[in-house]
Amino acid sequence: MSREMRVGVLASGRGSNFEALWNASEAGELGARIVCLASDNPESVALQRARDFGLPTCCVESSKRRGRLPREAESEIVTFLRSHAVDLVCLAGFMRIIGEALLEAFPGAILNIHPSLLPSFPGLDAQRQALEHGAKVSGCTVHLVDAGVDSGPIVLQAVVPVRDDDTAATLAARILEHEHEIYPRAVRLWAAGRLRVEGRRVLGADRETSRSRHIQEAKP
Amino acid sequence: MSREMRVGVLASGRGSNFEALWNASEAGELGARIVCLASDNPESVALQRARDFGLPTCCVESSKRRGRLPREAESEIVTFLRSHAVDLVCLAGFMRIIGEALLEAFPGAILNIHPSLLPSFPGLDAQRQALEHGAKVSGCTVHLVDAGVDSGPIVLQAVVPVRDDDTAATLAARILEHEHEIYPRAVRLWAAGRLRVEGRRVLGADRETSRSRHIQEAKP
Repeated sequence: MSREMRVGVLASGRGSNFEALWNASEAGELGARIVCLASDNPESVALQRARDFGLPTCCVESSKRRGRLPREAESEIVTFLRSHAVDLVCLAGFMRIIGEALLEAFPGAILNIHPSLLPSFPGLDAQRQALEHGAKVSGCTVHLVDAGVDSGPIVLQAVVPVRDDDTAATLAARILEHEHEIYPRAVRLWAAGRLRVEGRRVLGADRETSRSRHIQEAKP
Repeated sequence: MSREMRVGVLASGRGSNFEALWNASEAGELGARIVCLASDNPESVALQRARDFGLPTCCVESSKRRGRLPREAESEIVTFLRSHAVDLVCLAGFMRIIGEALLEAFPGAILNIHPSLLPSFPGLDAQRQALEHGAKVSGCTVHLVDAGVDSGPIVLQAVVPVRDDDTAATLAARILEHEHEIYPRAVRLWAAGRLRVEGRRVLGADRETSRSRHIQEAKP
């Protein structure tokens, strides 16, 4: 049997997706092990939780809160991840555009989750964007990270209805449940070597998509 | 009881959505009556089918096959629709950008169906766009028509999975089944006066969305 894949997480805030990955890992359902967490925000709840779990952590500081990290800060994260022999990097609410240092260090091995059905509603406040646009369905997307904003090849998507009485908060909560389900699923597929990328298409996940719990849940 | 709403259809090609609306109307399930069909293409199968059904038809000719119709051709269609006391205009594969003459004559009363989950993949060849982008879900959207391309307020959406072995043709066929279901549904909602538009949001349809057959069908 091949060695267990090692996952490093990057988080800026609450990091509920970090906890979902952690719980899946603890339950032996991730097919991979979370070995460290890095943050760009010393106030990050995810950072504190990682410490509570006994995970090695690293926090880079930057005067700017959003956008691209300075190259040296990103390189510091790369060094940290490499020191923990990370195979796969999972972004969990990491509010930064990923730059060359990370992309070159982990080619095809950085995943992100975004709370919309990409390519609709990339960027910030995706749930509010969907609501205000009047979309009748929205959801979440796990994708490989490239140099753009939420633009990389799509691994899995889950769908939820948008209801007349939704607010951005109720829609976000409904989507979040599915984020916590499909993100561990995507990691498991990646770790099992089941994914292959052809152009923009990621193949090997379609059974996983159709098995997704959301489809049953979305029934009235 | 209020009088039956009268629907005029515009089609350029095969017009399978015209037939779906027609069948729903004949089955008494449309809550409205199709009273005429106009086309910009004398070779349109939909035009021939409408004649077979005994519907009044009108065909405007234009040297250009795509884009906006010349104003006079569009005005001719408006005159035709008005002569049949049309309340609601349904585009069924009408390959034209709708111009001022129609928009001013039928404000808030022109529906279109598009084979993607808008705002993803507007314009031509939407199924191929979704496939090549690597989307894991796609579907179709009924929307009110505005001056843009597939940009008006969304009434209903239905979702289908995109499978690893899909071609543009197999995906298009899967989506088409749902087009034939949600378009009559949207017309029924419109005709019953159940829809209200607030900004970009169309309210009054969300039970219809969650009842949609696609959600059960999408299960493995």
